Amino acid sequence: MKQGNRYGLHRVLEPVGTMPQPAWRIDNTMEIYSNEILLDVETLNIDSASFVQIKEAEGGNPERIGEHMKRIVAERGKHHNPVTGSGGMLIGTVRAVGEELAGRIDLKPGDRIATLVSLSLTPLTIDEITHMDVKTGQVDIKGQAILFESGLYAKLPGEIPDRVALAVLDVCGAPAQTEKLVQQGDTVVVLGAGGKSGTMVLCQARKSAGPNGTIIAVEYGEAGCDRLRGLGWADVVLNLDCTKPVDVLQAVEQATGGRMADVTINCVNIPNTEMASILSTRDEGTVYFFSMATSFTAAALGAEGVGKDVKMIIGNGYTKGHAEMSLNLLRESAQLREVFESKYQ
Amino acid sequence: MKQGNRYGLHRVLEPVGTMPQPAWRIDNTMEIYSNEILLDVETLNIDSASFVQIKEAEGGNPERIGEHMKRIVAERGKHHNPVTGSGGMLIGTVRAVGEELAGRIDLKPGDRIATLVSLSLTPLTIDEITHMDVKTGQVDIKGQAILFESGLYAKLPGEIPDRVALAVLDVCGAPAQTEKLVQQGDTVVVLGAGGKSGTMVLCQARKSAGPNGTIIAVEYGEAGCDRLRGLGWADVVLNLDCTKPVDVLQAVEQATGGRMADVTINCVNIPNTEMASILSTRDEGTVYFFSMATSFTAAALGAEGVGKDVKMIIGNGYTKGHAEMSLNLLRESAQLREVFESKYQ
Ligand SMILES: NC(=O)c1ccc[n+]([C@@H]2O[C@H](COP(=O)([O-])OP(=O)(O)OC[C@H]3O[C@@H](n4cnc5c(N)ncnc54)[C@H](OP(=O)(O)O)[C@@H]3O)[C@@H](O)[C@H]2O)c1
Ligand SMILES: NC(=O)c1ccc[n+]([C@@H]2O[C@H](COP(=O)([O-])OP(=O)(O)OC[C@H]3O[C@@H](n4cnc5c(N)ncnc54)[C@H](OP(=O)(O)O)[C@@H]3O)[C@@H](O)[C@H]2O)c1
Repeated sequence: MKQGNRYGLHRVLEPVGTMPQPAWRIDNTMEIYSNEILLDVETLNIDSASFVQIKEAEGGNPERIGEHMKRIVAERGKHHNPVTGSGGMLIGTVRAVGEELAGRIDLKPGDRIATLVSLSLTPLTIDEITHMDVKTGQVDIKGQAILFESGLYAKLPGEIPDRVALAVLDVCGAPAQTEKLVQQGDTVVVLGAGGKSGTMVLCQARKSAGPNGTIIAVEYGEAGCDRLRGLGWADVVLNLDCTKPVDVLQAVEQATGGRMADVTINCVNIPNTEMASILSTRDEGTVYFFSMATSFTAAALGAEGVGKDVKMIIGNGYTKGHAEMSLNLLRESAQLREVFESKYQ
Repeated sequence: MKQGNRYGLHRVLEPVGTMPQPAWRIDNTMEIYSNEILLDVETLNIDSASFVQIKEAEGGNPERIGEHMKRIVAERGKHHNPVTGSGGMLIGTVRAVGEELAGRIDLKPGDRIATLVSLSLTPLTIDEITHMDVKTGQVDIKGQAILFESGLYAKLPGEIPDRVALAVLDVCGAPAQTEKLVQQGDTVVVLGAGGKSGTMVLCQARKSAGPNGTIIAVEYGEAGCDRLRGLGWADVVLNLDCTKPVDVLQAVEQATGGRMADVTINCVNIPNTEMASILSTRDEGTVYFFSMATSFTAAALGAEGVGKDVKMIIGNGYTKGHAEMSLNLLRESAQLREVFESKYQ
């Protein structure tokens, strides 16, 4: 067995010299190097921004969505959506552990894991699509994948159903960052609060801000808003389109008596919501962009354009302990668990 | 005179309901509303990422670059490069102040100002291009522009030459944020340290980190590196291509004895330098992306992909007092002033 680079550089095909994530194409030959892990894939969890884009491009037709996904993987060696730039993650069973890693890590053949690195850098093959859930973006396949030495993963917790764990782990960076950013007493605005990451963020924000904090949930559609009101974590639930910054500005102004948010967390899965995030936030407050549909220039120039001195953070999908932290949030909150189980089982 | 919206919403043509910055097209009719300011434009300072893109598209030909710029303005009503998403800023003379603002702000007809909001949201007309500096991206024109009520500006300081002030003010957010982020004793990596923003950041980083700090400058090309060595602000100057993350990683590892940077500041003007920034930074360190060529997804997924727990900040062009702070940095440092005067006079 040959030894590969810790970060998977040996699999980059083009452009030469880049890393696997930004690379256009990587080598998805399913023969492992001595420091790689081979997985039999069961389920792909396509990133929400990416799945929405593919679904729209294919008019919602499951078969055509599947063909589209296969085309991406055939062309790039990974499920890296060229339009949105994002990936997702997967559940699989360990098939083989390279000889250099065997014994040094806590994985052995037969273990079931979720990958915690993006599909946008994971060598992948799809032999067959066996089931497609157009509502959730969870896609069962026959295929294989490879994890590099630096690749993050989580063993699937036995007591939480797989699909639920997959959904939670996909977005686990968001509640973990919320825990870091939100202080007792803060006013927090969560955009896209009814989605997967939004719901977890809302739950954590309530916990972190405490009883003296003010939590404002923004979600589009009356049904989603009603569900959020039922959960009771938000002090105010606003039914608004986050691509309409002025509407959001006015509503948040009213809800906060003009003070605006200390921390705004963007969990929306569509483009053009940067300005709503910026305008919702007070001067010297923080905007956390978890949404992969965020445009760097729209955020940077948008804030400058309205003379808003806000700190804007790029949603790093990883922070230490994020997987365990998110699964614990689910274990703690029967309500949160119910939301995920009703959606993903 | 009709009253316009504070943020310029009344000038958005498409898509309806967005803000002037993200809008595809805005109304550049040069007739002001009661809360707008009309300017006679003298010089445009095209954003570096944008100018590089246009220059490359037009094979460096000044006339074709000019035509390209006029086309953008004709189509969008503003100089908003559709490829890079970025703008720039301008110098002009106040021609008229809307009746609602007159007396309430410190501007009157005849005052010479630089705008501190991006050209990507500034209504603009170009009648004629009178001089084009292909090296600096400073373009003299005959034309007009409009500043909204929320628009930021700085009066041109008499004692600093206009072109120098324009260059400094274009990037004044970068040294101002450096002052906020860098602490005494920090190890700081500056990527693209030889450029306009890079030089100012380097000067400020030296000041903020103090004698016990370690400043590492990364610049591509021996000439630029020699200039930086001559300035003496960096402890180490590395001649490296920032699109080659592994080279940068190894060099910074060596220069810091494996400790890596507490703060990394990206001032490069080309794409694909996210990974070099992330890998240069220590766990729980901070990456500040000033470069407008930054891709949000490449940064978010890149950090996750290598399991790096770094805080990544989007370079907001505005922070309180940034213009005055940057001009003062120039006033304090004869060396810095010399760099800018030799380049921009
Ligand atoms: N940074 C990272 O590492 C990372 C990791 C995973 C995911 N993400 C990103 O995080 C974002 C959210 O992911 P997710 O899985 O939580 O998505 P999700 O479950 O699909 O949730 C998105 C939410 O946004 C709402 N929404 C859509 N359009 C809206 C609008 N115009 N105004 C207000 N709300 C709107 C949706 O409402 P409806 O359901 O009514 O449409 C939904 O509740 C995505 O962009 C995804 O790419 C980032
Ligand atoms: N966030 C904001 O509000 C804001 C405002 C203004 C500007 N900006 C952005 O900030 C960035 C820098 O602007 P600027 O005006 O300082 O640009 P600049 O003066 O053109 O400087 C860019 C520097 O990067 C260097 N460089 C280019 N390719 C490189 C590579 N592969 N490796 C290492 N260094 C490389 C250049 O070296 P050479 O000269 O040898 O090519 C130059 O020294 C641009 O992306 C610009 O769009 C942001």
